[in-house]
Amino acid sequence: MPHLAAHDIMHMFIALAVLLGAAKLAGELMQKLDQPSVLGEIMAGILLGPTLLGHFKPELYAFIFPSTGNLPIALETVTTLGVVFFLLIAGLEIDLRSIFRQGKSALLVSFFGVIIPFAFGFGAAGLFPRFLGAAPGADRLIFALFVGTALSISALPVIAKILMDLNLLRSEMGTVVMSSAMFDDLVGWILFSMILGMMSGGGTSMAGVKRTIVLVLAFVVLALTIVRWLIDKLLPHIQAHTSWPGGVLGFIFTLTLAAAAFAEYAGIHAVFGAFIIGIAVGESTHLRKRTSELIHGIVTNVFAPFFFASIGLRTNFVANFNLPITATVIGVACVGKLLGAGMGARLGGMDRRTSWGVGLAMNARGAMEMILGLLALQLGLIRETMFVALVIMALFTSLVSAPAIKFLIGRRRKITLKDTVNAKLFFPALKSQSKEQVLHEMCIAAANAVSNSPERFLRLVQERERVTTSGWENGLAVPHARVNGLLEPLVVVGRVAQGIDFDARDGKLARLIILILTGDNQSQHDLLLDAGELFSRKEAVEQALHAETFVELMAALNAPVH
Amino acid sequence: MPHLAAHDIMHMFIALAVLLGAAKLAGELMQKLDQPSVLGEIMAGILLGPTLLGHFKPELYAFIFPSTGNLPIALETVTTLGVVFFLLIAGLEIDLRSIFRQGKSALLVSFFGVIIPFAFGFGAAGLFPRFLGAAPGADRLIFALFVGTALSISALPVIAKILMDLNLLRSEMGTVVMSSAMFDDLVGWILFSMILGMMSGGGTSMAGVKRTIVLVLAFVVLALTIVRWLIDKLLPHIQAHTSWPGGVLGFIFTLTLAAAAFAEYAGIHAVFGAFIIGIAVGESTHLRKRTSELIHGIVTNVFAPFFFASIGLRTNFVANFNLPITATVIGVACVGKLLGAGMGARLGGMDRRTSWGVGLAMNARGAMEMILGLLALQLGLIRETMFVALVIMALFTSLVSAPAIKFLIGRRRKITLKDTVNAKLFFPALKSQSKEQVLHEMCIAAANAVSNSPERFLRLVQERERVTTSGWENGLAVPHARVNGLLEPLVVVGRVAQGIDFDARDGKLARLIILILTGDNQSQHDLLLDAGELFSRKEAVEQALHAETFVELMAALNAPVH
Repeated sequence: MPHLAAHDIMHMFIALAVLLGAAKLAGELMQKLDQPSVLGEIMAGILLGPTLLGHFKPELYAFIFPSTGNLPIALETVTTLGVVFFLLIAGLEIDLRSIFRQGKSALLVSFFGVIIPFAFGFGAAGLFPRFLGAAPGADRLIFALFVGTALSISALPVIAKILMDLNLLRSEMGTVVMSSAMFDDLVGWILFSMILGMMSGGGTSMAGVKRTIVLVLAFVVLALTIVRWLIDKLLPHIQAHTSWPGGVLGFIFTLTLAAAAFAEYAGIHAVFGAFIIGIAVGESTHLRKRTSELIHGIVTNVFAPFFFASIGLRTNFVANFNLPITATVIGVACVGKLLGAGMGARLGGMDRRTSWGVGLAMNARGAMEMILGLLALQLGLIRETMFVALVIMALFTSLVSAPAIKFLIGRRRKITLKDTVNAKLFFPALKSQSKEQVLHEMCIAAANAVSNSPERFLRLVQERERVTTSGWENGLAVPHARVNGLLEPLVVVGRVAQGIDFDARDGKLARLIILILTGDNQSQHDLLLDAGELFSRKEAVEQALHAETFVELMAALNAPVH
Repeated sequence: MPHLAAHDIMHMFIALAVLLGAAKLAGELMQKLDQPSVLGEIMAGILLGPTLLGHFKPELYAFIFPSTGNLPIALETVTTLGVVFFLLIAGLEIDLRSIFRQGKSALLVSFFGVIIPFAFGFGAAGLFPRFLGAAPGADRLIFALFVGTALSISALPVIAKILMDLNLLRSEMGTVVMSSAMFDDLVGWILFSMILGMMSGGGTSMAGVKRTIVLVLAFVVLALTIVRWLIDKLLPHIQAHTSWPGGVLGFIFTLTLAAAAFAEYAGIHAVFGAFIIGIAVGESTHLRKRTSELIHGIVTNVFAPFFFASIGLRTNFVANFNLPITATVIGVACVGKLLGAGMGARLGGMDRRTSWGVGLAMNARGAMEMILGLLALQLGLIRETMFVALVIMALFTSLVSAPAIKFLIGRRRKITLKDTVNAKLFFPALKSQSKEQVLHEMCIAAANAVSNSPERFLRLVQERERVTTSGWENGLAVPHARVNGLLEPLVVVGRVAQGIDFDARDGKLARLIILILTGDNQSQHDLLLDAGELFSRKEAVEQALHAETFVELMAALNAPVH
């Protein structure tokens, strides 16, 4: 029986340590730049791969990532688990019901947002397969189907982040875009798994195509009906009768592995099985938020970075960069998506500017295109030039979406304190006796609400405090800080009966303390302005100080400014 | 470059799904029987391996766990990661400072608790190597060193659980045993890694032995001084400047992988590197409890089960069972540990009965012996009969320790409410308006305190409530339940100003509600008895009801019973 020798194990741990360390480091740097961390993880891989390290230090590269012996298999095992579990959490994020709840606009945006870029990609690839990087010997129809699919999937997590940053997630445009992107994800993966099935199941013969379509649809329908129903029935029992979180994690991960095995057996890829099971599990109303957060944390922190970093190891991104292919892919992808999704939004009754916004948001691509490209590369369907073009297209469209929407929609909707306060973060009687303690107490509450580090929040608030005092007039203090990576503003409202010295200009002790933490400067600016307008009069502060309950606080915040 | 074909991927996911599913299921069953879940995980592997499934359904076994192609490598990659990360958390649990804080007794128990079983094992194996299952061609000295080491390591997590169950963890005996077991772990692993080094580094030649001793000691000393200091300096910065938990998890896992690689490079096994790094990280006062809990959760739920289940796949436990070897191993292990640790305790000034108790507690073996045995088997040092004997010895001593100590020490120390109440679980003014709501509110608080499932707690309390009402006299209600797997009793004290109907015999509404959740019947019995004695008079309940702060509550609980 083949087994790992000592030097295999050593190389495996070297490779994994280098990949994880570099991926996490670059991911954190990207977060500081307010970009998704997955971008950093991919770039770390490109730096470590044949593009840079392999090119300039080939011996070191060969030492870290040997291409002989058992190491490639060991590494592929870890990255395969990484991508399968990543698709699990991608599935968990999809909310089938919300797609249909959105009604006409969402359906139209989804439909045209898929069909037009698909048609563009299919047409371009069908007409010029060699030019667009079809591998020698690849079936023309399958290649055209692949390119069409690869250009039509949107990147759900990227889109969600962009909309949050722009405070548009809960707007009409935001909900329509999110629902449509979920639908596109689902349709795109069904299409892609059919293509995979055709490739393994005897090409494009009528019988082969039929078999694949039947298998994929049967799997999707079964998983989203009977299996989903079973999961929904089982989850409460598992949560009640087993230890938390071991029982429910074991259940969900086992299901995912089994679905991945079944999908491979059916001739489609393991990732598709994990994705569909993710949707089925996520649909259960019994899945607790803490459980899905835990799964999210395990996968994004421990498994997925290995996969994303490994993308860069596959090829030399400089040597295989081909400007005509890349430009064509980017052009066709953007035009198709903008026109398709935009047209859908127009037909759904949105105004012209919002419709363009929908198109721009839906245009963001991400991890899914890279996974698709990687599988197609492994299966010998596309050449490395096309793979590189797809990765660059995904990176480019992700990066360009937010600035483009900002430019188009212009000034974003202003956020107010009323939007952001929260009963759980309202403390009518803080126990602390000093400024230091108050800030610490409030930072702990804020950090717990988003499972972040209180030390980090406190450090940022104190740094800001050193620049300018946060004690305002009339007994109000508004400590605040910008916290990179915070998706939504956090506002903690606290009251101290005896008052605490915040160095206010009027010398009064602060009794109403509003801690404002935001991920971006704009929201911070909005919220500070709102606080200033609301509490410019002493009476307004007094009214808030007399609010015993959260409802009364809301009433105070709602008071018209005189 | 070798890579995973589609059928390799399918088999990999089948094998992983079967292993994880069976391991978690059996682990949960064991927890219900009040045994460590790792026992279930190992047994699941034995059932799935050559012992049962492979014996009776060889074709099915060969389908799930093919011994050809790339599957064995893929599986070994996952189980190797599992055991390396398991050693990381084993290291995190070790508290170097507490070892030395315990002073003379702990040092004597550690010293004799290692030296005597080591001498017994070394002697027996040196005299009768063939009989004790040395592999043909194994070096006699190395084999004797191995057996000595394998018999001297205690199982820290098993011992901790036994002491907790017996309410002895915080007794003098408990702290001495825990410190000594930690020390034994450390010494045992250093010894074992030296043996590994000798095997790979040129046998027992003087130069080889010297090189190994130097390497191992240098690694341990460096890791526990400079590296530990560096980690302690870096952790606060990482927690302050990166996203939680991604940043700190990435740091610790990367360090672990790098240490594993370095240990392999030094000719000792990867697991040793992970273990020592675990100690170094665990020593940092800046490591937050939530971080180490998260790592613990990720490893025990997702990685370690693959490893423990895979132990059973290695061999046929029935065909390779050899009664003389197994009986000898168990006998030598028990006698050596009982005498050694017991003698150390006596010399440290403990009374005779407690000294035997120390010996019995230290006698529990566990995962470490199995890991050692597995490595020795892979390296061709021992035969399968000896491997099976070691696994059975570990299981046997784990299972027998608790009943033996119970029998020896006799009735355990009674637990009182005062021991178990906690400021965080004292609610002077519950908001709920009904019995149902009160129970739910208190169960949520209790479940959050131990990261368990509130639904499960509530269901158990309600089941118990159906059997007998928990409304006592004078406005006191004592809902309670036994919760399998709970390590320490959880007591939540709540007060309801307006009173709530708990069906008390005297018809009064309950205003003081004490929720008692215990892992065993004995603690439940103790606590209910204590509550009954304390609050038998109306005045005692009133005193507790007037306690505004936790300190006042403690005072009320401290009141002498009239």
